[in-house]
Amino acid sequence: MTKPNSSPVPPAKGTRDLYPDQMLRQNYITKLWRDTAIRHGFEEINGPSFEMLELYTRKSGEGIVSELFRFRREGGDDDYALRPEFTPTLARMYAAKAASLPSPTKWFSIGPYFRAEKPQRGRLREFLQLNVDVLGGSDQASDDRDAICVVVDLYRSMGLGPSSLKVVLNDRRLVEKMATSRGLEPEHMQMFLWVMDNTGKKPVEELLKQARATGIGQSQVKIFAELLQDLKAAADHPDKGTFDRLFPDAADETYLFDQNRLFEELGIRDWIANSITIARGLAYYTGTVFEVIAEGERAIAGGGRYDNLIELFGGPPTPAVGFGMGDVVLGLLLDDKGLMPQGKELIDALSQPAASLRPEAFVVAGSEDEDALIEPLLANLRRGIETEGFDGKPWSTDRYTVRPMHARRTYKTTRNLKKLLADAEKQHARFAIVLHGPDKVQVKDLDTREELVHERGDFSVDPQIDAYVGTAIAQRLA
Amino acid sequence: MTKPNSSPVPPAKGTRDLYPDQMLRQNYITKLWRDTAIRHGFEEINGPSFEMLELYTRKSGEGIVSELFRFRREGGDDDYALRPEFTPTLARMYAAKAASLPSPTKWFSIGPYFRAEKPQRGRLREFLQLNVDVLGGSDQASDDRDAICVVVDLYRSMGLGPSSLKVVLNDRRLVEKMATSRGLEPEHMQMFLWVMDNTGKKPVEELLKQARATGIGQSQVKIFAELLQDLKAAADHPDKGTFDRLFPDAADETYLFDQNRLFEELGIRDWIANSITIARGLAYYTGTVFEVIAEGERAIAGGGRYDNLIELFGGPPTPAVGFGMGDVVLGLLLDDKGLMPQGKELIDALSQPAASLRPEAFVVAGSEDEDALIEPLLANLRRGIETEGFDGKPWSTDRYTVRPMHARRTYKTTRNLKKLLADAEKQHARFAIVLHGPDKVQVKDLDTREELVHERGDFSVDPQIDAYVGTAIAQRLA
Repeated sequence: MTKPNSSPVPPAKGTRDLYPDQMLRQNYITKLWRDTAIRHGFEEINGPSFEMLELYTRKSGEGIVSELFRFRREGGDDDYALRPEFTPTLARMYAAKAASLPSPTKWFSIGPYFRAEKPQRGRLREFLQLNVDVLGGSDQASDDRDAICVVVDLYRSMGLGPSSLKVVLNDRRLVEKMATSRGLEPEHMQMFLWVMDNTGKKPVEELLKQARATGIGQSQVKIFAELLQDLKAAADHPDKGTFDRLFPDAADETYLFDQNRLFEELGIRDWIANSITIARGLAYYTGTVFEVIAEGERAIAGGGRYDNLIELFGGPPTPAVGFGMGDVVLGLLLDDKGLMPQGKELIDALSQPAASLRPEAFVVAGSEDEDALIEPLLANLRRGIETEGFDGKPWSTDRYTVRPMHARRTYKTTRNLKKLLADAEKQHARFAIVLHGPDKVQVKDLDTREELVHERGDFSVDPQIDAYVGTAIAQRLA
Repeated sequence: MTKPNSSPVPPAKGTRDLYPDQMLRQNYITKLWRDTAIRHGFEEINGPSFEMLELYTRKSGEGIVSELFRFRREGGDDDYALRPEFTPTLARMYAAKAASLPSPTKWFSIGPYFRAEKPQRGRLREFLQLNVDVLGGSDQASDDRDAICVVVDLYRSMGLGPSSLKVVLNDRRLVEKMATSRGLEPEHMQMFLWVMDNTGKKPVEELLKQARATGIGQSQVKIFAELLQDLKAAADHPDKGTFDRLFPDAADETYLFDQNRLFEELGIRDWIANSITIARGLAYYTGTVFEVIAEGERAIAGGGRYDNLIELFGGPPTPAVGFGMGDVVLGLLLDDKGLMPQGKELIDALSQPAASLRPEAFVVAGSEDEDALIEPLLANLRRGIETEGFDGKPWSTDRYTVRPMHARRTYKTTRNLKKLLADAEKQHARFAIVLHGPDKVQVKDLDTREELVHERGDFSVDPQIDAYVGTAIAQRLA
């Protein structure tokens, strides 16, 4: 035994002691994370808090490797690291079971992460993070929208709105095409993306100097500089005209601009901004990338598509998209906005019923004509239909005409209704919703076998089919 | 960037990848942990996953220090360790705010812990642990019972019963008195307790050899051997007669035997066993110690009183009692007993409403004559009143006549009813329950100010006051 010594041992720098009041705040954040992810059809998983060091050195950018807490067991020779992010663990887990997992696999995870960086406001050495990922899907643009809808509903559930923050989108394929069209050599692409990602954090001159220091020639660095300038111009005028003028050779890659109509249908258009200057620091992103930017230009969440990563961890080629969101900056933002409930209100907010683990609605299309109706219906059911003019507490049930529900869709390609309903039952769904056109819907209670078919003329609640379906289910579940 | 390499990186030895099915199982365990602790009036806290190394070297037995994962930040000179247990963090947190905390302070915590020991069945290098502690109370024996009641209700909520496991109690003060009465020198007490704790894990001869190797003289080691023999004899015949005969000089220290009547009143007598051979390995225990022993002699939880520890971390002298329970052996035990729900049943179990964060019942005694009624009433309200002859699923709501509730008591010494009700309101309680003798109770709805006074003749449900109170509240909350 060491000799008694009663001077206090402080907590390690950058870590937190959570007393009951702070713990309730953290539980408020994790409750909204979990409830929202579940309603969007994601299943919870978790991995170890530490991993073999090699898991991180294999694929992350150098940025994250320098921030690792590394260690060994006394007398052991394995190198370990505390996890700085979830994606490598996720890739390992998916790769190990890829053959038996559904397409797509939708997973979320909540747990502690660790970075050996200098602690500052909004950045700690231990923090909580939510990770949400869609892996192995067959419709990548749809999976991207699925992930983005979760991001938006997370903030919406906390009472935040599009005037406080934006989900800023870009596509690395587009940036790469633009850069290539200007003569950037492929081997310098990663460095260019790193410079892009750090523009705004450090002076451009310093970033270019760092690029030169790695041995990149003067002519290539000149292309870096011109690209940064034109990208900024295109970002300042985010219309197709400006884009086509500045980057005529990349004009067919306008996937980003085409999404806006769909975002409108999903009710999230106001939350989205496009910016071709978003790159994301991590090396593994391949397509869509996004950051959530709150007032004051802070990035408070981020993610993107990483289609090559699962293969790198021994799995099959697998398209994938996901994002991470930390609890520290989020808590500060909610405090700033007066949206973090206190005292009795916090207890009331935490006492709201948890999201149903059973899917409450399971949506299938009666024919391919209705496929396009699925995403907007899911978006409405998962978000809940807000009561007109509500301006009370974000967590109050008074807020909703139809409360948010756990809603899923079939991803099967068959049109055989019997098989589709079997899929719904396998996932323990309560109600199957079969769309037969914009004016006709069939709602089937899978527990009681009761079945309702309604056509537009029958909709007493609202002419909108989503409100009808939501109300029909909500009444039966009440 | 490291060169691509697609061979899989395995998880670190002794860690777990939790896929959705395994995650639901873990969430089932943590839900029952959290719900039970909340209903018993404990508030959730958490600390960092890693601490300054000194926090552990200061007070733990050498046993735990050799199992630490230790590390530094690259370029830093602070020594850190992944937390192997919660108690040092708890002591630090309590010490830092002792002056402003209530008496007693009742805290629980759920999170990951780490031990660099050899992984085996039931022992991993990363695991979850529940910690439950009562700090700074003025009635130590009552606080001990409070902690023990939580232990029992945790297992009961999972469908386990006293035929599957026992809470085995001992008191270190008693063992120390017995050892001293035989001539054991105080400086060898810690080593003796360590030998005692390891009896059953290793051959006695080997343990005594290890004691000799530390320089303890032959005559003292002989006392070790005789003590172990007589302790075993007393443990095999756990009656006061045997005890008094073997240890006549410790005969006034029979606190353990006196508790049985109280355990009977709390409805947990069947779950309790006494054994003077339980010591607990950690050096900081000072009084009551206990282990939960399941069939097959596995210790699946343990704890005790640690009255000197808070002071060691810079706080005031503070009586304290608590316990820890890990998820790994618990999961194995539930599997063995067929008590871990599967598939749809697991989802149903997880869908049971969470324990109310608001205290539903807040109990005060009308006069000192009713003080002794408080603990049994709390025990019944927190446990729920089980329907006669129920033998269905442990998580089913059908199981209860009166469902388990979040119940608290006042710890204030005043008899001023107005002040006591103010205490109830400060804690956001819904109902105050004022006991006016075994046959008369006042139930006050603190939200609506509605008040009911019932006497024995009015009890239509059950002659037992606890059932009446529980039913009265449950009906109003429904």
